[in-house]
This record gives sequence, C-alpha cells and structure tokens, in this order.
Amino acid sequence: MSIPSPGKRELGLLKALLTRGGRKRSGCCRCEGLRAVEELLDRKKELVEFIVATPKAVSMINRELPNLRLLSDEELAEYSDTLNSQGIIAVAKIPEFPDSPVSGNFILALDLLNDPGNFGTIARTYRAIGGCELWYTKGSVDPWCDKAIRSGMGAQFALNVRKFDDLPTLCDNAEKAGYPTVYIADPHKGESCFKAKGLFDKSVLVIGGEANGVSMFPENAKSVMIPMPGNYESLNAAQAATVLLLESVRRSTEYI
Amino acid sequence: MSIPSPGKRELGLLKALLTRGGRKRSGCCRCEGLRAVEELLDRKKELVEFIVATPKAVSMINRELPNLRLLSDEELAEYSDTLNSQGIIAVAKIPEFPDSPVSGNFILALDLLNDPGNFGTIARTYRAIGGCELWYTKGSVDPWCDKAIRSGMGAQFALNVRKFDDLPTLCDNAEKAGYPTVYIADPHKGESCFKAKGLFDKSVLVIGGEANGVSMFPENAKSVMIPMPGNYESLNAAQAATVLLLESVRRSTEYI
Repeated sequence: MSIPSPGKRELGLLKALLTRGGRKRSGCCRCEGLRAVEELLDRKKELVEFIVATPKAVSMINRELPNLRLLSDEELAEYSDTLNSQGIIAVAKIPEFPDSPVSGNFILALDLLNDPGNFGTIARTYRAIGGCELWYTKGSVDPWCDKAIRSGMGAQFALNVRKFDDLPTLCDNAEKAGYPTVYIADPHKGESCFKAKGLFDKSVLVIGGEANGVSMFPENAKSVMIPMPGNYESLNAAQAATVLLLESVRRSTEYI
Repeated sequence: MSIPSPGKRELGLLKALLTRGGRKRSGCCRCEGLRAVEELLDRKKELVEFIVATPKAVSMINRELPNLRLLSDEELAEYSDTLNSQGIIAVAKIPEFPDSPVSGNFILALDLLNDPGNFGTIARTYRAIGGCELWYTKGSVDPWCDKAIRSGMGAQFALNVRKFDDLPTLCDNAEKAGYPTVYIADPHKGESCFKAKGLFDKSVLVIGGEANGVSMFPENAKSVMIPMPGNYESLNAAQAATVLLLESVRRSTEYI
C-alpha cells in the first residue's frame, strides 16, 4: 500500500496552525520534531489528526504513524517553522481541560509568561522531574503554539495543562483541589528557596512573566527567592524554574 | 562639543566583528546592549575602542561613554545583530589570557560547548553567583562572539575567561593552580550533585557540549549527575549548569 501525499486542506491547516487564530478556529496544534511527535504518540495518540513526514524521518521513528502523509525534504521544509527541520510534523487536537483530579506534591503555575521558548523549556523540565500539573493564566503565551511545543519536546502532552482567567481564580481552584499554600518566585525578596519549609507541600509555585513578574500578589501568598551572591541580574524565568524544580528533587531524594 | 559620527573604518569593523575571522584579525569584539556595555565599562573600561549609540540609548545609560559615536536608530539597526536593538554597541579589545592567580572555590569548565546562547547564559549565571574562573577548551564556541556576549550580558568581562587546547591540558593547569579534583557533569551516571561531597572544594566542574558531552574522560575524574525522576530527556547544558551552580550557593548558605 503506498503512502498518500497530504491534501490541500491538510497543507493549508499546517500553515494556519502557526497563528493563534488558526489554532482557535480548528482546535488543533502543530507538533514538530522527532521527540515531540514520539511524546504525542506515547501520551495522547487519540488526538492525532494526521502526520506529515519525509521518508527519512519515517525510517528514523520506527513505529506506526497514524494517518501518515509523505512529503519530500524540500516540500516539508516549506511547512517547517525551524531552520533545521527533523522532517516530521504532527497535527493534533489541542487537549481539553483535563477532567482527571489534580495530583502531585505541588502545582507549577505560570502567570503571564510571554516567551514560548521559556514556556516549553519549563514544561520539559517539569515533565523530566516527574511533575503533573502545569497551570497558567490567560495572557500568557499559548502553550500549544508551534515554538512552545518544540521547546517543550511535546512535554505538554504528558502534563495536565490547565488554563485560568487570572491568578486569583487559579489560586482558588488550587485551594479547592487541596493545594492551599501559594509561593511566588521573586528575584529580590522572600525566604530562600533552599530553606522555605512547605515549598513543595501541597502548594502552588508561581513563576511570573519575563518582564514584569506576577500580575498580582494573592492574599496569604509568600515570596520565595533564589539567593544570588553575585548581586547581579536575576536568572531568567526558565532558569529560575529549573532551580526551584530541581530543589524539589533534591528534597525528595535527600534521605535516599 | 558635538559628538562625531562613526568613520568608515569603524563601521567596517562593526560588521567584520560578526565573523570569527574579523575578530581574529583585529583582536576586538562587539558588545551590544545596555547591560552588556555597562558591565564592560564597570569591569574592563580600558579595553573599549569606541562606542556607537543612538541619542536615546545615550540618554538611558547616563554615564560617560568613551569615544562615543552617534548614529540614528535606522543606521544603528543596520549594524545590530538583534531584532530589537537597544541602540548601543561597544567595540572592545578581547581580554588577554588573565595573568591574575586562579581564585574561588571551584573552576567552571566548558568542553566543546557549541551554542553561543548557552555559553552566554552560563557565564551570566556563574557571574551572578559570584564565580570567577570560566575556563573552556578549543573547539567550543567563541565566548567573544556577538551572541555569546549578548546572552551573557557582558558577564565575560567580569570573569577570568581562560582558553586551553583540550580537556587534559585544562585539568593539568587546574591541578597546578591547586584545583586537583575533576567532576564531569553526566546526564545518566555518577553521584547525585546534591550529595557529592567535594563537588565545589577546589575542584574543576566540567560541562560538556550539547550534542556529545565531554571530549574525553580524564583519569581520576568523577561523574556527577542531576537526578531526574521523570526518566526523560536530560536538561540542556545551560540548565544543567544552572542547577549545579545554584547547588554551590545552597551549600554555602546552608548554615547561615
């Protein structure tokens, strides 16, 4: 059986999904790259609409690819959003708001985070330390945009990604789910992240946007800071998140 | 006294310094952005050859700018290497191999690190935690290229950046300087970075390249690993470096 080429509608969708409007109209997103597509297939295979790939990419991924369409290297490069395409793009439905219960020791929340690369990097690290709940506020970058999925290597598909209108609504929902404590990462003030006792104990850990930090400071929230002896520029959002997330690993492995 | 425009030779140099060849021929580098230029002026003012800036950038930096040349926004954008230029680029001599003695608790070494953004981010974090000695091997990206200096926000000018032919030579020099222990960051094996006892005790901490890790495994070196319970893709080089560097902060502030 020969593998078909993509149809006109499918090629149009590949381009349309590079815009927020295109994603909204279709309810779909693009997932580009070998690792990202594998993650999608491992975790949310039922969402896949179709996959376009070059013969070389097909041979590298070595597993069944649902609704596969073949393209030549040159054709695929036209639809890729990267300079060095890995020759494979899946189109998938954007997951709905998860109906599974909230789980894990803490919730990671991103408030008005603007950069898709940072969003993806944070998702990837959170996934790598075994995290579950990635929450974010309206006004943040779209976690389902092409760049965020590529940077995240598809980690979004392995997490419970939940969107809320604003930070108070997010914190309310966390409290109802049994996560009453809120910690806000702050570059300049608060308790040291290496000392704050309840930091990962049924809490919400909030990382603010690159430019202006969090949108507001919820009542009863506490500040937590990464100590920086060099007295210099603070870490960027993705690096700060990495330090905090790995601190949770350090604590959980401390007595092992 | 009116501020002159840059001459033809200076404009030529601005473009030439975007290439490795141009930097080698002139012994100079470009330092773009407000923070990077401030760091250069704070730490290595004597290296500045000239500075081109827009009137707006000059008003924002609010300090004396040696050998200042004015350009309009449009003219400067032509020489900028970024999409959103901050309107200021300094041309400076590349610092020579430092003749100051090696200092600090540990040496951070980058072996065949390829990405200028990673090199800069690591330099910036290392500077931010109060580090001194940033060593690297031949075959790594040039720490004095435009993008590495921008990503580092000029942190390179605040550090003792030392280049060696290869990892064994680097380790030999470290040992002679009183840093006999070598730790290699490894994504998969070795002692946990949260437990390795002598990790920052007169040691060399080596981060390998993005694609293939370190070039070789020196005799007597030990592996150190960042534990990742998610059993997934490892952290990228810059994130891994951030975790290790902040672990040094955590230990030094543990009893404060």
